[in-house]
Amino acid sequence: MNLRVILVEPMYDGNVGSVARAMKNFGFHDLVLVNPCRIEDFGLAMASHARDVLQMARSFPTLPEALQGANLVVGTTGKRLEHEQHHLRLHLRVPCLSPGELSQKLREKEGTVALLLGREDCGLNSEELAECDMVVSIPTSAEYPVMNLSHSAAVLFYELSKADNADGANVEMASPESLGLLRERARSLLREICYPEHKVEFSMLMLRRIFGRAELTEREARTLLGVIKNIRWRLGCERDENEIADDPSGKEKV
Amino acid sequence: MNLRVILVEPMYDGNVGSVARAMKNFGFHDLVLVNPCRIEDFGLAMASHARDVLQMARSFPTLPEALQGANLVVGTTGKRLEHEQHHLRLHLRVPCLSPGELSQKLREKEGTVALLLGREDCGLNSEELAECDMVVSIPTSAEYPVMNLSHSAAVLFYELSKADNADGANVEMASPESLGLLRERARSLLREICYPEHKVEFSMLMLRRIFGRAELTEREARTLLGVIKNIRWRLGCERDENEIADDPSGKEKV
Repeated sequence: MNLRVILVEPMYDGNVGSVARAMKNFGFHDLVLVNPCRIEDFGLAMASHARDVLQMARSFPTLPEALQGANLVVGTTGKRLEHEQHHLRLHLRVPCLSPGELSQKLREKEGTVALLLGREDCGLNSEELAECDMVVSIPTSAEYPVMNLSHSAAVLFYELSKADNADGANVEMASPESLGLLRERARSLLREICYPEHKVEFSMLMLRRIFGRAELTEREARTLLGVIKNIRWRLGCERDENEIADDPSGKEKV
Repeated sequence: MNLRVILVEPMYDGNVGSVARAMKNFGFHDLVLVNPCRIEDFGLAMASHARDVLQMARSFPTLPEALQGANLVVGTTGKRLEHEQHHLRLHLRVPCLSPGELSQKLREKEGTVALLLGREDCGLNSEELAECDMVVSIPTSAEYPVMNLSHSAAVLFYELSKADNADGANVEMASPESLGLLRERARSLLREICYPEHKVEFSMLMLRRIFGRAELTEREARTLLGVIKNIRWRLGCERDENEIADDPSGKEKV
């Protein structure tokens, strides 16, 4: 598993440096910043001997650019409000995991996991959480649930390093291309079966959550693509499309 | 379980404040400082909404004062050097646990656990580690094992809050008085059986480690005290001492 740590609009360079240090403490090196604050001397000082992680960090103006190539997107939230949880669970259908549960899920997985950490003052917004396949939340005291950004990062890296160090055969996670194609084909299928237009977006989000929660392997994603292809072929729609990618070599289609 | 967090000679008030915040995040409030730096505005700022924890912290000039009343003393070390580990394990006979193992051990225990965190630059020294019943070490990357003080504190509080929130019947840990008495009586016994003088200190340390590792309950400590009392009585030494405390009421002796 390659862990890509994505800080979304961090406000203080000291925190960015501290996160870089905590990453290196647990053997992670891939830091990505979305529209960050300026990294100055204090940030470098807080990074201490992880200055290299900070200096090799990539910056992007938007989240979708930062997410490119990730097999699984995991958001973080410190929100413990029942209402918010309810909203997250029922509307977005994002499974909300403890760090230990996330670590368990990522054991023996191969691929890039993007871990999103939000702004110091308000975390990730709901659009950003909607991009996530899963959400992780550290169980904190109701009396004072809001952790310092780099502290929550350290706790998550600590748990994820357990997954990273676990023995056992690794399973190849579905590639972002296969997952994207699966969503695209599923959407086409919904249209082709005259699924009520006003329900398409909702059901697509639901499907996305199911695929995310299931942590599809590449093999499973390809099998599902094959199933959809068969259905569409029976429906007489398949031949109309420029089919390329459930077999990336394109050989089957030529 | 009551967790007493003891910072031994912390050098930077920002770290003390950060540790206070992380404590409150995980529901811990008992902070003790040994010969600390001055806590100024930056420390209070880093404590954020845990200013109360910082302000209620007790300060002592020496570690033994800070440890009074603790049932179990747990040290922390970031040292991963094989030599040091060897030294710790073989000479001091301190079991070196992962945070998860420590958390497991403390489940369903009642009493005060003192968690010692050392100086930012060099941690706890060997005299301080010798005061500990157990040592916990966070598994970090060999490339950069040295964590920020408040990060390691946050990881430990996170794991220990799992123990604190575990369900189940609680077991009363041996009181510091019973443990102290047990050591005292054991030492007397060694003398009385003419145990080689040069081996007494080593064997006493070993006994202390065994008791610490075994996490004696109060009942077990009292049973052991009873066994030693019986042995000494048979040896004809028991009556010479002003016996009071394996039965704290003193009733048996009057």
